[in-house]
Amino acid sequence: MPTDPSDPEGAIAAAAKRCSNWGRWGGDDVLGTLNFLDEAKRREGAALVRRGASFSLAQRFDANGPQKGERRRTNPLHMMLATGLEAERGTQGFPHGIGGADDTVSMPLQASTQWDGLGHIFDHGIAYNGRRAGDVVTSEGDQVTGIETTAGLIAGRGVLLDVGRVLGDDGELPDGFAITADHLEATITAHGETARVGHGDLLLVRTGRLTRARREGWGDYAGGDSPGLSFTTADWLHRTEIAGIATDTWGFEVRPNEFDNAFQPLHQVVIPHMGLFLGEMWDLDALAADCARDGVYEFWLTAEPLPVTGAVGAPVAPVAVK
Amino acid sequence: MPTDPSDPEGAIAAAAKRCSNWGRWGGDDVLGTLNFLDEAKRREGAALVRRGASFSLAQRFDANGPQKGERRRTNPLHMMLATGLEAERGTQGFPHGIGGADDTVSMPLQASTQWDGLGHIFDHGIAYNGRRAGDVVTSEGDQVTGIETTAGLIAGRGVLLDVGRVLGDDGELPDGFAITADHLEATITAHGETARVGHGDLLLVRTGRLTRARREGWGDYAGGDSPGLSFTTADWLHRTEIAGIATDTWGFEVRPNEFDNAFQPLHQVVIPHMGLFLGEMWDLDALAADCARDGVYEFWLTAEPLPVTGAVGAPVAPVAVK
Amino acid sequence: MPTDPSDPEGAIAAAAKRCSNWGRWGGDDVLGTLNFLDEAKRREGAALVRRGASFSLAQRFDANGPQKGERRRTNPLHMMLATGLEAERGTQGFPHGIGGADDTVSMPLQASTQWDGLGHIFDHGIAYNGRRAGDVVTSEGDQVTGIETTAGLIAGRGVLLDVGRVLGDDGELPDGFAITADHLEATITAHGETARVGHGDLLLVRTGRLTRARREGWGDYAGGDSPGLSFTTADWLHRTEIAGIATDTWGFEVRPNEFDNAFQPLHQVVIPHMGLFLGEMWDLDALAADCARDGVYEFWLTAEPLPVTGAVGAPVAPVAVK
Amino acid sequence: MPTDPSDPEGAIAAAAKRCSNWGRWGGDDVLGTLNFLDEAKRREGAALVRRGASFSLAQRFDANGPQKGERRRTNPLHMMLATGLEAERGTQGFPHGIGGADDTVSMPLQASTQWDGLGHIFDHGIAYNGRRAGDVVTSEGDQVTGIETTAGLIAGRGVLLDVGRVLGDDGELPDGFAITADHLEATITAHGETARVGHGDLLLVRTGRLTRARREGWGDYAGGDSPGLSFTTADWLHRTEIAGIATDTWGFEVRPNEFDNAFQPLHQVVIPHMGLFLGEMWDLDALAADCARDGVYEFWLTAEPLPVTGAVGAPVAPVAVK
Repeated sequence: MPTDPSDPEGAIAAAAKRCSNWGRWGGDDVLGTLNFLDEAKRREGAALVRRGASFSLAQRFDANGPQKGERRRTNPLHMMLATGLEAERGTQGFPHGIGGADDTVSMPLQASTQWDGLGHIFDHGIAYNGRRAGDVVTSEGDQVTGIETTAGLIAGRGVLLDVGRVLGDDGELPDGFAITADHLEATITAHGETARVGHGDLLLVRTGRLTRARREGWGDYAGGDSPGLSFTTADWLHRTEIAGIATDTWGFEVRPNEFDNAFQPLHQVVIPHMGLFLGEMWDLDALAADCARDGVYEFWLTAEPLPVTGAVGAPVAPVAVK
Repeated sequence: MPTDPSDPEGAIAAAAKRCSNWGRWGGDDVLGTLNFLDEAKRREGAALVRRGASFSLAQRFDANGPQKGERRRTNPLHMMLATGLEAERGTQGFPHGIGGADDTVSMPLQASTQWDGLGHIFDHGIAYNGRRAGDVVTSEGDQVTGIETTAGLIAGRGVLLDVGRVLGDDGELPDGFAITADHLEATITAHGETARVGHGDLLLVRTGRLTRARREGWGDYAGGDSPGLSFTTADWLHRTEIAGIATDTWGFEVRPNEFDNAFQPLHQVVIPHMGLFLGEMWDLDALAADCARDGVYEFWLTAEPLPVTGAVGAPVAPVAVK
Repeated sequence: MPTDPSDPEGAIAAAAKRCSNWGRWGGDDVLGTLNFLDEAKRREGAALVRRGASFSLAQRFDANGPQKGERRRTNPLHMMLATGLEAERGTQGFPHGIGGADDTVSMPLQASTQWDGLGHIFDHGIAYNGRRAGDVVTSEGDQVTGIETTAGLIAGRGVLLDVGRVLGDDGELPDGFAITADHLEATITAHGETARVGHGDLLLVRTGRLTRARREGWGDYAGGDSPGLSFTTADWLHRTEIAGIATDTWGFEVRPNEFDNAFQPLHQVVIPHMGLFLGEMWDLDALAADCARDGVYEFWLTAEPLPVTGAVGAPVAPVAVK
Repeated sequence: MPTDPSDPEGAIAAAAKRCSNWGRWGGDDVLGTLNFLDEAKRREGAALVRRGASFSLAQRFDANGPQKGERRRTNPLHMMLATGLEAERGTQGFPHGIGGADDTVSMPLQASTQWDGLGHIFDHGIAYNGRRAGDVVTSEGDQVTGIETTAGLIAGRGVLLDVGRVLGDDGELPDGFAITADHLEATITAHGETARVGHGDLLLVRTGRLTRARREGWGDYAGGDSPGLSFTTADWLHRTEIAGIATDTWGFEVRPNEFDNAFQPLHQVVIPHMGLFLGEMWDLDALAADCARDGVYEFWLTAEPLPVTGAVGAPVAPVAVK
């Protein structure tokens, strides 16, 4: 719990000061905490492939997703340009009996399983590394920290902290549950040595919120109440020097937020000040079940965002391999 | 060169018969050659990570792509829902100085770096495994072999055959160059032991066509003349039991096609009959330069398509790690 | 009420037989009841402009519309390509201080105020004038009766029947209220001579459903219960020889439909068999208030659909002038 | 020709001062020259319907349009959600044999026949009536002068000046032909009394540019060289007190523009300073042929834009009736 719930702005400013990475990798840096993820970490990650079992961590992208259209965030719309019906009917105009189907998608880049880019959130009009927000993200996209700048980088050692399974009932944390640094450490302790978290790791935190949405329907999964990281974890996220963190929730942070009147205050610290990459709406359930089974919480993780030029967020189809 | 260039339909039928995988994995199978990619292959692939160097194999997704709108295949359109300018101006209506940018994309699923799904191509109205095309792909998408069925699978041993560098001038094959099985074998021989290709591998074939487009402008990269696989490689592709194959060209096959009047005849054999996964418009240049440097042509490859439900093709951001 | 609520299929077949216009204007006809709207009717309509008062009959097209995403019918999504913020900041790269804003829209063609085209509804796979549905509307659109074929035609004498005001409480009919031919005739009688309906007219029927949705929120306006035309009006609609009819409801017909298990049975008669043009989600409130005020229920009506080539429905911004 | 082709900025400032309508209709005005179009004008316009002949002035909206993707202005993309093929096959899941087709469109609002809204162009960051551009048009659209504010208004007396037919060879002006006030007056004289232009009229100027594009292919119709209004017509456009003006060209003004280095300088005067409504890419050919035939150049014109909330431009399907 933050010390003074009536003063999010003061708490944010203080945490931002403690956790800032501005200038840490130079004034031109666009990668933030991905700088922690180096080749040694990739070697370490690849060495974790023991069985060859792989796990998709992506939700399906379709019209049955969680979005409700708020702030024009709709669900992905998949539309066909040609179908098997025309092919069967033989009206496509191609020679020698070939036929084809073709399709399109329209979607908010943060409609489903996704990475937040560093241009997604600003603090008082300032973006990561101290740049003016309006110099970074215009109607033509993120001119500086567009998601395409991360191309090829997000592959390394992944660690799952299944906080839902360790601290929740039946594997799920309730809405409003604020995961603190103590909760994270307790989960590491419960999981054992393979769950240690440190420099350059890609951390996955499972709350069970998606599990519940799957069982009960989306409801307010997108934007509503949820378990999630406490605002107070900012220092822990900074100190551990992780390269990125992803959760199975819509918004990474606990909701309602832990201040009287606030909207995603932890984002305001970790994106523009730390340059931390946040993943949201990841599907961690199959991986978590496997980790619970074999007691191994580390794995090789590839989570390359779709490199839409200038994107401030991007869909991703992450794959964990153990 | 096919024996009789005047008879694509006959040649296709014959090759289809020789190379069919219908029923090989049961009548319900939806995965085709991905069945060749098993856990052992993933262990083998992961062991190839020696330096931890990673390579993005995706083109950037944006309005400056190769598409020309033919058959409504446009380039990806990235549009903002909120920008840093509003955040800086303080008009977004959020508390405590937080501001945000948000965005969307609209695109054909085969606009840029992509996998063809098994519902993409039909032979005389018949889809993979003998299904009626119209039972598989309707206006609501691919009901059977949608790309989401491959979730978590496409991670394994990758091999690069840089045919452009081995057989081309200055690393590039000319348009119309039909890569035969002999060319592929000669390239393997030239590259050495790390380039052997077999059961369960993900094969990347570089022609240099993208290199040329980058230098000279897109021109007819999308749909026009190009080097590519010869129709006659169908048997080699079948015999090697590869799990998938990707090229740096728009259409995988040589263009113009090697028949008097034809359109993508090799597709008509390998997708509906073999169930082979084809990748197109991959950017192999950085990886190829590295392979030429260190003489190692095998690597760990993750190429998870964006799991758009019912998609007959899907964008992908592949990553190779050596 | 239909005679036998358990047999929609029989009732539809019988009504279709009685009301068919197949062949009435030749086998090649694509205009259906718009054939009734001729130059004489336009002269008659224009002569109704007495005061010069004009009324928009369109809802606003935006993300706050009635659609709920069912069958992928979303609300219109308006997105900017350039804004005044960049113009003010002077970063658009234009000379002499000019700046600009630009925008796009993505929307189902029947998201808001709209005309159904003749390719929108089929009866047992048969489209208007006896054509096979699959010969008419493919993935490339309506090849025969696309909405663009109506270009320039839909301007003529409009008549408002404010059934809500005549028969409802406080101007609104309750959901499930089936408007019969008797109700229509009673409304004409109540309105007086200017409300007579006949050959070539464009008939507007106000139920008050939109008024209620505006007051209470969209709720199930799109697809849910509603007042609307009774299935039994098919003959009346045929006999009057109107050129088109529009309502202030989502679906023109009463909902729930008047059979035990049915979905829009009147559509199945009037579109494929009569070739009648149906308008839906029109905003008739301002016009209706004016008609109630001056007792004149006829006017000059222009309702030209946006001529999207091959569209089976189309947005329209109708204007009535009195 | 402007006096000093090297100083567009000075010329614009001077013309803006002479032609400004800021404050003319109050500080809150959002309608600009549409204020000239009143009920009397509508009565006058309706009285021009003599034969009842109607003419669509819209191009078709489809993928074969003039746009080339510059500044992300693509052609309209029409996509199906359901087709007659599924309906025929009986797989849509509806009762009693009903089947349906459904569709969507995605398009820039200025892709085809269109009105510029008053938020489309700014002068040094200032919008119509002296407002800051960034206060008017944000990522959420035009908050002040969105096209929906014109609902119901654009119906009145239309006048065609067929400058192409009067002054061009074979009815077409060459690219770069700058139409001056003298040219407009000469055309009025040639056409006779029905072509007089004045207070509240909707003026259509035909150059023949679309005729040529139709014959020769789009080429650079969108954004390239073209006949069009001279910068020097600003005063004439102001003095005549027309309510709006539309042309058959992409950009209304002559291209190349008449200054050494300029981009649409006349827009910069007439939109933000005069509040004049500009129509572009209208198809005037059928109407012009009729006017040439009967010698009557005035008519009833309805040109209601699609009321997309907050749009800075909007597609329109104008209809002229004589």
